[in-house]
Amino acid sequence: MTKHSYAIIGSGALGALYGSMLARQGHDVHFLLHSDYDHVKANGFKIESHWGDFELPEVHAHQSVASMPPCDVTILALKTVNNHLLPQLLPPPTSGGGAVLVLQNGLGVEQEVAEFVGRQRVLGGCCFLCSNKVGPGHIKHLDYGRIVFGPLECNSQTIGLAESICRDMTEAGIETLTSEDLNTVRWRKLMWNIPFNGLSVALNASTDKLVGDEDAVRLVRDIITEVHAAGSACGASIGDEWIEKTIDHTRQMVPYDSSMRLDYLAGRPMELRTILRTPIDTAAAAGVAMPKTSMLYQELCFLERNRD
Amino acid sequence: MTKHSYAIIGSGALGALYGSMLARQGHDVHFLLHSDYDHVKANGFKIESHWGDFELPEVHAHQSVASMPPCDVTILALKTVNNHLLPQLLPPPTSGGGAVLVLQNGLGVEQEVAEFVGRQRVLGGCCFLCSNKVGPGHIKHLDYGRIVFGPLECNSQTIGLAESICRDMTEAGIETLTSEDLNTVRWRKLMWNIPFNGLSVALNASTDKLVGDEDAVRLVRDIITEVHAAGSACGASIGDEWIEKTIDHTRQMVPYDSSMRLDYLAGRPMELRTILRTPIDTAAAAGVAMPKTSMLYQELCFLERNRD
Repeated sequence: MTKHSYAIIGSGALGALYGSMLARQGHDVHFLLHSDYDHVKANGFKIESHWGDFELPEVHAHQSVASMPPCDVTILALKTVNNHLLPQLLPPPTSGGGAVLVLQNGLGVEQEVAEFVGRQRVLGGCCFLCSNKVGPGHIKHLDYGRIVFGPLECNSQTIGLAESICRDMTEAGIETLTSEDLNTVRWRKLMWNIPFNGLSVALNASTDKLVGDEDAVRLVRDIITEVHAAGSACGASIGDEWIEKTIDHTRQMVPYDSSMRLDYLAGRPMELRTILRTPIDTAAAAGVAMPKTSMLYQELCFLERNRD
Repeated sequence: MTKHSYAIIGSGALGALYGSMLARQGHDVHFLLHSDYDHVKANGFKIESHWGDFELPEVHAHQSVASMPPCDVTILALKTVNNHLLPQLLPPPTSGGGAVLVLQNGLGVEQEVAEFVGRQRVLGGCCFLCSNKVGPGHIKHLDYGRIVFGPLECNSQTIGLAESICRDMTEAGIETLTSEDLNTVRWRKLMWNIPFNGLSVALNASTDKLVGDEDAVRLVRDIITEVHAAGSACGASIGDEWIEKTIDHTRQMVPYDSSMRLDYLAGRPMELRTILRTPIDTAAAAGVAMPKTSMLYQELCFLERNRD
């Protein structure tokens, strides 16, 4: 088995989990750390996961990308609110011609990366996971965890690249699937992210409270239906049954605060641009209005500026 | 000048203000009181108004309609969340054949009253005022105050009735206009009530905060536009300029918490049925969807059931 080198840009609840699992498997993984750098440098990562707990005492921790080597794969797991940093962050780890796997939320994120490294080197994926950072270098992975990813541009070379990364991940214990239809994967994830991230902030409620109230469920369903229709107009092929499935899956989820709600409550900026605005604009360009999603977006913009 | 007898059903920020002004003018005014009965019986009303402060020490206070005489005009100024009480409240004061002037919020409220006294005796009106009850029998009237009202069914007799009540009110110092198009008056008021009452609760903000934020103003404008279109489909004739005028008037208003926000914050039920649901249903019956207004309604239903 060939071991690959990975750069993890954004070592939070998602990047630290997957990166640590790849490192545990013997890959050469370099983590970009911000506030947790000193702690992780000294103590490594502590992962509590429903896939099995483990510690990673020795970590290639970096305070800046300047010290990172060129890597085979750069996993972008940064919040998209920090994407203005991409011009600084991407060049060092990708300077050897490596690929970038974008595991961020929302729409249009692969295209932003492609501007720096070219479309042929970009893959994108969605992570369906409930994971939180509960302390410095300490991740609690509560539920789910599947990654579905694929190349931005499909051809034999990029599909081969996707398959080799998928193999690494699967061997590392990560539930991973590849897809040749990244657009569909993105829109299906938006069917969850838009209603549940958005309404959990607008209605000040955890997702289990939302699926437990008839009016909230009606609203969730209306918004999912809008996202589904917008996705279809934008070329995604998602069966109608996914409207109810998305609600049902959330009913079965552990009670969980969405990442947007956690950001809101902590006073951090929310990923409104990539999760709501870009999908709304993309649908509008395809001739489809998303009135309730637009309203949610406007409410969230107001709330972000007017936190208590 | 003929003096008339008035029954005030609902002696809060609105009923106590207008009733006291009519009583000060020499009309025989009977007030139905609930929690403030003992205080008002002993001390009367204290009115602080931008039209001039005054006290009304002697008040015909009633703890129940059973002790009320039949009156020429019954002013219904009760919150519509209490309209299930109409079968008990209306018969005594209207038993002499008097009229009912419905000064409640929302749509369809005259029709509810007409079921008890017949359409010929019902008038309805909208009050554009900023007024709060600040203590037992103590009203603070901050801004505006105009009443626009008219008969539910227009004919020479009901128009004559409206004009005689208008005369009483004008002489009492209340800015009053009559209209032969109650439907238009109602929908124009809804153009304020739906966005500003609703969003002040959904976004946890006073109206001045809403008109001070670009995203909130965009959302307010979207919802007003929906209400305007719905009103047009339902026969109201409101010029397009009222969309911006409604926002501009609110910009000039004293900073003010809407009645719905005060109800929400105080843990009282909100007037969701008459202010939002009936307009949505009425518009739907006329073939017009109100997606953002419907979303606001669903959010408010959720929030009412899930208060902190």
